[in-house]
Amino acid sequence: MAEAKQLSGAGLRGQVAGKTALSTVGKSGSGLTYRGYDVKDLANNCIFEEVAYLILKGELPTQAELSDYQTKLKAMRGLPQALKEVLERIPATAHPMDVIRTGCSVLGNLETEESFDQQQDMTDRMLAAFPSIINYWYRFSHDGVRIETETDDDTIGAHFLHLLHGKKPSALHEQVMNVSLILYAEHEFNASTFTARVCASTLSDIHSCVTAAIGSLRGPLHGGANEAAMELIEGMQNPDHAEETLLGMLSRKEKIMGFGHAIYSVSDPRNDIIKVWSEKLAQENGNSSLYDISVRCEAVMWREKKLFCNADFFHASAYNYMGIPTKLFTPIFVCSRLTGWAAHVMEQRADNRIIRPSADYVGVEPRSVPAISAR
Amino acid sequence: MAEAKQLSGAGLRGQVAGKTALSTVGKSGSGLTYRGYDVKDLANNCIFEEVAYLILKGELPTQAELSDYQTKLKAMRGLPQALKEVLERIPATAHPMDVIRTGCSVLGNLETEESFDQQQDMTDRMLAAFPSIINYWYRFSHDGVRIETETDDDTIGAHFLHLLHGKKPSALHEQVMNVSLILYAEHEFNASTFTARVCASTLSDIHSCVTAAIGSLRGPLHGGANEAAMELIEGMQNPDHAEETLLGMLSRKEKIMGFGHAIYSVSDPRNDIIKVWSEKLAQENGNSSLYDISVRCEAVMWREKKLFCNADFFHASAYNYMGIPTKLFTPIFVCSRLTGWAAHVMEQRADNRIIRPSADYVGVEPRSVPAISAR
Ligand SMILES: CC(C)(COP(=O)(O)OP(=O)(O)OC[C@H]1O[C@@H](n2cnc3c(N)ncnc32)[C@H](O)[C@@H]1OP(=O)(O)O)[C@@H](O)C(=O)NCCC(=O)NCCS
Ligand SMILES: CC(C)(COP(=O)(O)OP(=O)(O)OC[C@H]1O[C@@H](n2cnc3c(N)ncnc32)[C@H](O)[C@@H]1OP(=O)(O)O)[C@@H](O)C(=O)NCCC(=O)NCCS
Repeated sequence: MAEAKQLSGAGLRGQVAGKTALSTVGKSGSGLTYRGYDVKDLANNCIFEEVAYLILKGELPTQAELSDYQTKLKAMRGLPQALKEVLERIPATAHPMDVIRTGCSVLGNLETEESFDQQQDMTDRMLAAFPSIINYWYRFSHDGVRIETETDDDTIGAHFLHLLHGKKPSALHEQVMNVSLILYAEHEFNASTFTARVCASTLSDIHSCVTAAIGSLRGPLHGGANEAAMELIEGMQNPDHAEETLLGMLSRKEKIMGFGHAIYSVSDPRNDIIKVWSEKLAQENGNSSLYDISVRCEAVMWREKKLFCNADFFHASAYNYMGIPTKLFTPIFVCSRLTGWAAHVMEQRADNRIIRPSADYVGVEPRSVPAISAR
Repeated sequence: MAEAKQLSGAGLRGQVAGKTALSTVGKSGSGLTYRGYDVKDLANNCIFEEVAYLILKGELPTQAELSDYQTKLKAMRGLPQALKEVLERIPATAHPMDVIRTGCSVLGNLETEESFDQQQDMTDRMLAAFPSIINYWYRFSHDGVRIETETDDDTIGAHFLHLLHGKKPSALHEQVMNVSLILYAEHEFNASTFTARVCASTLSDIHSCVTAAIGSLRGPLHGGANEAAMELIEGMQNPDHAEETLLGMLSRKEKIMGFGHAIYSVSDPRNDIIKVWSEKLAQENGNSSLYDISVRCEAVMWREKKLFCNADFFHASAYNYMGIPTKLFTPIFVCSRLTGWAAHVMEQRADNRIIRPSADYVGVEPRSVPAISAR
């Protein structure tokens, strides 16, 4: 069972920075809960939209509420012309996280949150539009096509794959997307969410908060880890080669992306879940090489360093089996975590004080400005 | 003398979130120091570029170093064509902080920081380009002109006013811009800087960090206060009307923007400095009404609530006297604080651990997911 580490030291580790009713991470008895529900229970029984509704509004929707919510989200997939024209000006070589950060920021110019009453609608609009933004840019810059971003897919996960591949996904792939989006949706005061809350504490608008959070998620120590894990495993020819590679990296004290966690100490509860789906995708695919390599990596890292896979590691193979280009991995994380970010912004606003910590000064003593000729 | 408050409670107030060698805020004996120098000493003796150099590199430049630095910055004022085309697609009604946030984000797509070795060059590029970005958009959207953003002005402050007004500023106005940019340049772990550091702690790129910080500065509890102060005082007809207005607002428990501070307890050392320049501008202008109103506000707030002007309050009248539209006030703050943000990003990177605090859980107890039909 996932248990929390003994926490101390730098990076505010273990210091309480506020209250939340949204989730628990690493509490004994259950690794990760959203609004009291175990993430495993949610991943086994829900689609992503149910979980987004839960996180944002506090309770799981009834069938009627869920249908209404899906209908609302489906109607918000189109992009303003000005936003499309901006996306067309971003080169294919750009980092997709820079693109989605920019897309969110531009949306904030065109559809600005003028009052906090609009926070739920703004969030829903972003949930619906982010897959459109990232795929519109990707398909235009890479394939030279201007895609129609409005589809009739029932779920955000299917909408994403549909835009990317130009056809509706299989039932299996839609299900894996739902699971993946559920697993990534919320994770308490992680760095990107905390970024969103600090921004919200100045009473800034929600697009500023989400834009800021995207910037944090981009970092390789955070969301960028699933892409880095993919780059690692795709260079491995087979499990033995994987073992050899990792032993070399560990002896050189390199960080292995997709392993370890700031809060969990012995396992990440999300890993068991996505791992099962990665295996199913390997079977469907008829080539289990990437999965087998990943399994060996997991064993070696635990044997050598007691480091365990976090949510990102088996996401790499799962996404790869679904034909998702590596550079879109972290943007998918954005499409999901947006839920948690927005819910935290709402929670911060409801009981706010500006977040303004102190610093230990370690600089020079007071001194006088010398004339420029005397420096 | 500015002294620090007794700190406690929410918003991480008084909790140490890391180390810094960049500045001290509210330490006894001196209100605000950058790298050991009192901000007043710097504002009296330096141009902004000297202070930016100091903050970013640790020491004040010699004359030769300063000239080289100014030459470097002057050469970086042009904008890429794609960025101009993006700015042309943002409507005149947009919030200028959303524009500069977007401009920074787009720059990160076109001139991405690929390695931390580039951090100083990326920072200098932003220092040079931000006035161009904001004024290019402003003049295009408001006046329908595509301005040439490369000028031969020696300082960033003069460059800004030149682009805005289409002519070189007077020596007085250039000097006030230098003072203003110096006063706003750095302020320890304020909310926007802390946002930048949290983002940097994931090892994200510098454009993500600065984009995130801009989003935080936009909030009315933070950088947005100088605009709010302007809106307040421009509705006041004379000092007596100002007094009446404030008493009404205080009795309704409204917040008065431009007063109070998270760290300082009895005064903000930046206020004395900008107030003197506001008075000089009033004299030059031949109409001291706005200044007189501001002085009365200061007296009333202190008499009634022991609340003092922070850096933002007399900035409002000063900027107004220089013909700067109110909605560009906070973007000017960005052009300055960028220095502090970038220096903090560099400092965070040099000794990093991901910033990931904990939360107090106040939500519901563990529960099981009911079937959708049973909700
Ligand atoms: C997630 C992460 C940032 C947590 O950081 P943290 O709280 O500072 O980590 P810890 O305090 O547990 O680190 C303890 C030790 O294990 C090492 N370690 C942690 N994760 C490691 C990894 N993935 N590979 C190699 N060594 C690792 C650390 O370097 C540290 O060694 P040190 O004491 O010699 O410096 C860190 O585990 C990491 O960088 N993982 C890889 C990136 C990743 O997968 N991120 C996604 C998270 S969901
Ligand atoms: C700067 C600021 C956010 C600091 O927040 P803080 O650390 O939470 O403030 P404090 O703890 O000192 O507040 C103490 C009390 O004074 C009140 N107060 C503080 N600033 C006030 C202001 N400008 N107008 C009216 N009341 C104010 C607070 O509401 C609080 O009252 P309460 O105890 O009844 O809730 C706050 O002073 C403020 O909102 N000022 C106006 C915005 C501004 O000018 N920001 C720019 C800062 S450079």
